[in-house]
Amino acid sequence: MLSVTSRDNTNIKNAVRLKKSARYRKESGLFCAEGVRICIDAVKSNAQIKTFFATEMSSLKHHNEFELLANYAEQTIIITAELFSAISDTESPQGFLCIIKALDKTIQFDTIKNDSRLIALENVQDPGNMGTILRTAEALNIFGIVISNDCCDIFSPKVVRGSMGAVFRIPYFFCSTVVDFLNTNQNIMSYAAVVNANAEKITDVCFQTPCVAVIGNEGNGLKNETIKACSRQITIPMQGKAESLNASVAASIIMWEMVR
Amino acid sequence: MLSVTSRDNTNIKNAVRLKKSARYRKESGLFCAEGVRICIDAVKSNAQIKTFFATEMSSLKHHNEFELLANYAEQTIIITAELFSAISDTESPQGFLCIIKALDKTIQFDTIKNDSRLIALENVQDPGNMGTILRTAEALNIFGIVISNDCCDIFSPKVVRGSMGAVFRIPYFFCSTVVDFLNTNQNIMSYAAVVNANAEKITDVCFQTPCVAVIGNEGNGLKNETIKACSRQITIPMQGKAESLNASVAASIIMWEMVR
Repeated sequence: MLSVTSRDNTNIKNAVRLKKSARYRKESGLFCAEGVRICIDAVKSNAQIKTFFATEMSSLKHHNEFELLANYAEQTIIITAELFSAISDTESPQGFLCIIKALDKTIQFDTIKNDSRLIALENVQDPGNMGTILRTAEALNIFGIVISNDCCDIFSPKVVRGSMGAVFRIPYFFCSTVVDFLNTNQNIMSYAAVVNANAEKITDVCFQTPCVAVIGNEGNGLKNETIKACSRQITIPMQGKAESLNASVAASIIMWEMVR
Repeated sequence: MLSVTSRDNTNIKNAVRLKKSARYRKESGLFCAEGVRICIDAVKSNAQIKTFFATEMSSLKHHNEFELLANYAEQTIIITAELFSAISDTESPQGFLCIIKALDKTIQFDTIKNDSRLIALENVQDPGNMGTILRTAEALNIFGIVISNDCCDIFSPKVVRGSMGAVFRIPYFFCSTVVDFLNTNQNIMSYAAVVNANAEKITDVCFQTPCVAVIGNEGNGLKNETIKACSRQITIPMQGKAESLNASVAASIIMWEMVR
């Protein structure tokens, strides 16, 4: 077990870079998971933990979890609270952070069954929304998530945290565009989520399987070409005065209707 | 139209205090709404705007909206981008912020109709969740929101922003506890949202009206006494491995089932 007190330490610098840079996460194939519960989730999911950082205080406060993680991780480093603030992405850090090898949770497309339900995300930009969608998808037993390259990074600290560990468990698949994905998976019925009173109401749709619901950008929705590439257009009927729902709420209601 | 350049100006100090202190918002009966769209929403909702702050750049960039707000507000103050950062609650401010008189949107309980559907919140702590719940409630035409005193402040900047202006429009009612509210409104059927496989599945419930769905704290759910005070217990059936849904997602799915 190492003890580190300098910000110039390579491990600290690496953690800071992983926190800040999506590009570096991609290049290195590593990402950060912060918080007691999420670090434990990583162990339970058999994730490969390269480094486990903890403060001395948190190692005492969460002694059992600390022991578990310290035994499991390839390397454990005790750092000061001040150094922890530098690598942390939260305002009130719990003092546990793991550097984890990006998991290969890629959907095996030959495993998609006839009753599989998926969700596809196009240009979803807010990490909070992305994390919530992962969490909801897992809770509702959605088979997997298709993520186009214009979405925010699934391994950003806020997504990992918001997903409550679903990022370790739910299968996902990266595609250059959703249209590409649909073209190569023509057996999957695709439902474009739109805000359009002329689209089919989700309460009237009988989702055929295998199927994928396609969710677009928070402000602008789906691209026209993506809507055209989908089998059907669906909408959440809204009686109120509000213009739209939050993207993660809209996605959650649609996933709920797919599985209820 | 005033132009202010000093942080010591009374209007600036007042705005900073309103941003930071729930207590001061309560005492003064004022709150802040930030962003072009939300400030325009305030006008459309006939809110009383005491002060409209804008930067010179935003007054040019959003000229029409600026004119509208400057004509409507009791006082308009042009400030520097640096001063705007001090009163702003966002990382990339749009340069529009209004100080608004807290609206009396209290539910008139003699207006509750036989078909009214409400939602009650107990100890909801995250302003992001609260804002999303307000937004979803409005979009789904929920009649009003009951808010117990242990919830976060409905007028905090993050709630106002997350609600997308629903805070100006949806009726709400503050109560000391949800149990108090239920005791004084015994004609309203109450449904406690719980994570319990023995509770009635929301897909099996036929919501009687008038009704209220009661949502609890993000981590701990509802208090036992509140669950006991409710007519029924309901749960969202989950097939996946995740333990729970995000509070705003759970509330949204329940509201959706109430109205669908």
